[in-house]
Amino acid sequence: MSIRIALAQYRFPVGDIEGNGTKIIEIAAKAQKQGADMVVFPELTITGYPPEDLLLRPSLKARVSDALEQIKQAKLPIAIVIGYPEAQEGKLYNKSMVIYQGDIIADYAKQHLPNYQVFDEKRYFQKGTQTCTFEFKGIPFALTICEDIWYEGPARRAYEAGAQINININGSPYNIDRTAQRHAQVAKVVSQWPMATVYVNHMTGQDELVFDGGSFIVDSNAKIRFTLPSFKEAFEIAELEQTESGWCVKNEQLCPKLSIEEELYNALVTGLADYVNRNGFPGVVLGMSGGIDSALSAAIAVDALGADRVMGVMMPYQYTAKMSLEDAEGQAKLLGIRYEVLPIAEAFEAAQSTLAPVFGDRPVDVTEQNMQSRMRGLFLMSLSNKLGYMVLTTGNKSEMAVGYATLYGDMCGGYNALKDVPKTWVYKLAQWRNSQGLAVPERVITRPPSAELAPDQLDEDSLPPYDILDDIIERYVERDESLDAIVEAGFDRDVAYRIIRLIDINEYKRRQAPEGVRVTQRGFGRDRRYPITHGWKPGR
Amino acid sequence: MSIRIALAQYRFPVGDIEGNGTKIIEIAAKAQKQGADMVVFPELTITGYPPEDLLLRPSLKARVSDALEQIKQAKLPIAIVIGYPEAQEGKLYNKSMVIYQGDIIADYAKQHLPNYQVFDEKRYFQKGTQTCTFEFKGIPFALTICEDIWYEGPARRAYEAGAQINININGSPYNIDRTAQRHAQVAKVVSQWPMATVYVNHMTGQDELVFDGGSFIVDSNAKIRFTLPSFKEAFEIAELEQTESGWCVKNEQLCPKLSIEEELYNALVTGLADYVNRNGFPGVVLGMSGGIDSALSAAIAVDALGADRVMGVMMPYQYTAKMSLEDAEGQAKLLGIRYEVLPIAEAFEAAQSTLAPVFGDRPVDVTEQNMQSRMRGLFLMSLSNKLGYMVLTTGNKSEMAVGYATLYGDMCGGYNALKDVPKTWVYKLAQWRNSQGLAVPERVITRPPSAELAPDQLDEDSLPPYDILDDIIERYVERDESLDAIVEAGFDRDVAYRIIRLIDINEYKRRQAPEGVRVTQRGFGRDRRYPITHGWKPGR
Repeated sequence: MSIRIALAQYRFPVGDIEGNGTKIIEIAAKAQKQGADMVVFPELTITGYPPEDLLLRPSLKARVSDALEQIKQAKLPIAIVIGYPEAQEGKLYNKSMVIYQGDIIADYAKQHLPNYQVFDEKRYFQKGTQTCTFEFKGIPFALTICEDIWYEGPARRAYEAGAQINININGSPYNIDRTAQRHAQVAKVVSQWPMATVYVNHMTGQDELVFDGGSFIVDSNAKIRFTLPSFKEAFEIAELEQTESGWCVKNEQLCPKLSIEEELYNALVTGLADYVNRNGFPGVVLGMSGGIDSALSAAIAVDALGADRVMGVMMPYQYTAKMSLEDAEGQAKLLGIRYEVLPIAEAFEAAQSTLAPVFGDRPVDVTEQNMQSRMRGLFLMSLSNKLGYMVLTTGNKSEMAVGYATLYGDMCGGYNALKDVPKTWVYKLAQWRNSQGLAVPERVITRPPSAELAPDQLDEDSLPPYDILDDIIERYVERDESLDAIVEAGFDRDVAYRIIRLIDINEYKRRQAPEGVRVTQRGFGRDRRYPITHGWKPGR
Repeated sequence: MSIRIALAQYRFPVGDIEGNGTKIIEIAAKAQKQGADMVVFPELTITGYPPEDLLLRPSLKARVSDALEQIKQAKLPIAIVIGYPEAQEGKLYNKSMVIYQGDIIADYAKQHLPNYQVFDEKRYFQKGTQTCTFEFKGIPFALTICEDIWYEGPARRAYEAGAQINININGSPYNIDRTAQRHAQVAKVVSQWPMATVYVNHMTGQDELVFDGGSFIVDSNAKIRFTLPSFKEAFEIAELEQTESGWCVKNEQLCPKLSIEEELYNALVTGLADYVNRNGFPGVVLGMSGGIDSALSAAIAVDALGADRVMGVMMPYQYTAKMSLEDAEGQAKLLGIRYEVLPIAEAFEAAQSTLAPVFGDRPVDVTEQNMQSRMRGLFLMSLSNKLGYMVLTTGNKSEMAVGYATLYGDMCGGYNALKDVPKTWVYKLAQWRNSQGLAVPERVITRPPSAELAPDQLDEDSLPPYDILDDIIERYVERDESLDAIVEAGFDRDVAYRIIRLIDINEYKRRQAPEGVRVTQRGFGRDRRYPITHGWKPGR
C-alpha cells in the first residue's frame, strides 16, 4: 500500500482569505496533476498565521465559509488538508479539514492552544477535545495541529484509535536551532506512537515573526526521511509506502543541514523581504555609518530586495572618522547601491543655535549626541517621504536591550533586520556573509565599534565588552536568570547590576522601536511583555 | 450580628513586592486601630496589577512568600484579605487569601481568567476549580476575584455553600461608563444569589491602564449602599449588619456620581500623573501649537503635576497663525507655566538646503510638512534630554486612528494623555475643564482645527468633519462594524472606505506611538492586536 502526499510550503498572507482560497485551489490542482493523492497545507491556511484580532471581526465566519465553499466547488480528486478557523455557537476553533472531491471527509479542532511567548491562541480559540482519524485510500490517518505534537496525548490517542499516518499542520515560527528541536520532538513522539508523521509549516515573514518552512516527514521508525528547504517556498511530493517495518518514504530526500549562521541570515533576509514587499515599498533607505550594524543591514537588504532597491546615506559630522566615510562608500560600491552623502553640520548647528538660549550655560552632554542622531533620523525620514523608500533601522539586540540607541534618531524606521541579533552575532553573520562573497569591508569588521557622536568615542567606554554584555543579556532576558544567579556564574556584580538596570529602564524605548525579525529564544516584542512602569528590584 | 470591614483602595505599584508587603501591614494595622474586623485589598495586591511577564521570573515565588511571611509575622488581630500569585507544582494561580493573627484562615484561586481585550491572564495562570467559603466572627464568607463576578457560577456555588458575604477583589481598569457596568453586574448577581458583596478595586495608573478605584458594597438586597470615590486613594470602614431583610450597610455612604466628562478627565490626569511620577520625571515639556489638543494636554498636565512641573514650548514657522502665538502664550500665562518660543525656521531651512540636491526638482509635498513636525520633535526631545523633563505627546485618538500625525514628529514623547480620546471628546473635555475654572482659552475651542504645516491648511481639507470621522472610527475600531454595516448605517461609502483604509494602513505608526491612557471600550495598544502586514479587504 502506498500514497503520494504533496507538501505545500507556500506563503499565505495574513488576512487575505479570498486570495488564499484561490491559491489553495491552484496548488491542489497542480498537486493532483502531478499525481499526488493528498496535498497538505500549513496551519490556518485560509487566514494566514497569526491573524491576530482579525479573528474577532464579525465577517470572518462568512468570509472563511465562502472560501471553503469555493474549494469544495472545485471538486478536485485529491485530498486537500487545510487549516481554517471555525465559528460554532459563538466559539472559535483552530481547525484542520480534509476535502476530497468536494466533500469534507474529516475535520479536527486543535487540542493544545499555545498561549505563551509570542502566542495568544487562547485569546481567540476554544480547545478541541476529540481525536480525529479518517480513512483515505484504505489508509488510517490522523489529523493534529502544531502544538498538539509537543504533548503526548493527541498522538497517543490517535495511535490508539488506529491511525498509521499523522498529518500535522503548523504555524511554527523560526528561532535559532528550531529545526533540530522540531525534528527531535516529532521523532520522540513517533518513537512512542509509531505513526509516520507529515509536518507542514508556513514559510513567510509576518511582522516580527519569520516562519522558516522546513516541512518534513518522519517515517514510522521515527527517522527523518524527507525534508523541504528552509526559508524557501517549496512544493514536493513524497511517496509513502507500507513495508514490513512500517510506513517509509520511498523517494527519500534530505536537504543539506544549514549552519546556524546561514539559517539566521536567511531568516533576516526573509523577514525583511516579506515586510517590505507585502507593505508595498519600492525599496529601503538606510543610514550607512561605516560601522558593522549598518554594513550588515545593507548586505541583508541587498540580498532581500536587490541592489537597485536599496539606497545608502552617509550623514557625516565632525566626529565621523575618515575610515567611516571610506568604508561606507566602499561598501556601497561593492554592493552596487545608490549612495548619497548628506552632512548634518548645517542643520545640526542651526538647531543648536536656536536652542542655545534655553540651554544656557549647561554643559554639553548626551543631548548633543542625541541631536546628531535625530537629525540623521530626520534626514532619512525626509528621503523616505520624498522617495517612497522605507527606512531600514540598523540597531542590534544588544543596543535595544540596554538602550544604547537614540529614540527618534537611529531608531527611526519601518523595520529592523537586526533587532533580535546580539552584537556578537552581528560579527559572525558578517563573516559568514563574506564567506559567500565579500559584502562587508574587512576593516568594518575589525575596527572597534563606535557611535561616533563625540570625540574618540568607543562603545566600550559606555558598555562592557560585547561578549560579556551579550552573555548577561541572554541570561537575564532569554533565560530569566536573576542578578544573583548571574553573579554566581562568575560575572562582576556591578557590571551585571548596571546591565540589568539598563534593560529594565529602557523598556520605554523598545516599546517605540520598529518591528524586527525575532530569531532568539526570546525577542523583544510580543515575546517579552514587561511593564514600562514597575518596581521590581534586581537581586534574586 | 455585624462586622466592620475596611476597604483599602490604595496604590500598589507593579513589581514592588517588598514595598507592597510593608504597605499592606501598615494599612492593616491602621484599619485594626480604627476598629475594623477585616480589611480588604485589591486583586494581586502583592505584585500590583497587571504584573505581566514579571510573573515568569523564577524568584517570584520566594519574593511573594517572603512578603506573605512578613504579613503573617505581624500577627495582626484583623482579617486581612489580599491578592497574590501562588506557584504550585510549576503552575501559577491568581489567588486571594485571608490572614488572621498570623494564620491563613482561607485561600482561593480565581476560577475565571480573562484573556481578552487588555487581559492576558491565561498566559500566566491556571484556573482554580474550587469554591471557597470561610467563617469569620461567626459569619459565613466567600472569596471571589474580579472576573468571577461576571459569571454566574462562582457566586451561585458560594451561595449554595452557605456564604452570606462575598469578598470580591478586583483589578478592573477604567473605561467610559465602567462604574455603571460594574454596579449593574454585581447587583444582578446579588439579586440572584443574595450575598452582600464587597468589591474592592485598584486605584492607580499603570502604563496604558488606569484603575479608577470606585470600590463599593452591595447589600444582600442588591442595592449599592457604600461607595468609595473614583480616581482617589481612599480608605473607609463599612459596618455590615445582619437584619431581617439580610445584610445591610449601617453607615451607608454614597459618593456623588461623576459626569462622564469629569470621570474621563480624572482618568487622564491619574494616568499621566502616575506615569510621570512613578518613572521619576521632574516634569513634562510639551509643544504648544495654539490648538485644542496641546491646550487640553497642558491643562491636564498642570492638574496632574502642578504648574511648576510643566513647560510649554511654541515652535512657530511661517504657517503659524498670529492667533496661535497669542493663544499659546495666553494659555501658558493663564496656567502659570514656563513658556518658551523656539522658531524652527533656521534649522528647518538648513535641513532643506542639505537635502535639496537629493530632492532635485521633485515638488513640495507632505515631506516638507513632516520635516517641520520632526524638527519640532527634535527640539522637544533636546529639551527633554537637557532638562530631564518627559515630552508629553498631544495627539488624540482620531489622529492616531487615521495616522494624521507625524511619526518621530508630533508623535515624539513618553506619554500621551489624549491617546484614546476622540477629537469630539477633546472639545467636550476642554469645555468641562473650563466650567471648573478657565484653563483653555475660548478661541482655541472655537477656531477650526489646523496642523499649520502648509498655507491656510485645515484638518477638514484632509479629513471628514470630526463628528463623522469619530463615529466611523468608533464603529470600525470599537464595535468591529464592517464597511458594509457602516454604509448601511447611513455613511457615504467613499468616505467610510477611505477612513477604514487609513485605520488599517496606519497600524505601523500606532505601533511606535507612546503609551497613553486607555479610556474607551477599545483603545489602541494591547487592547487591539492587529497585524501591521495583512491583506484583509474592507467590505463586509
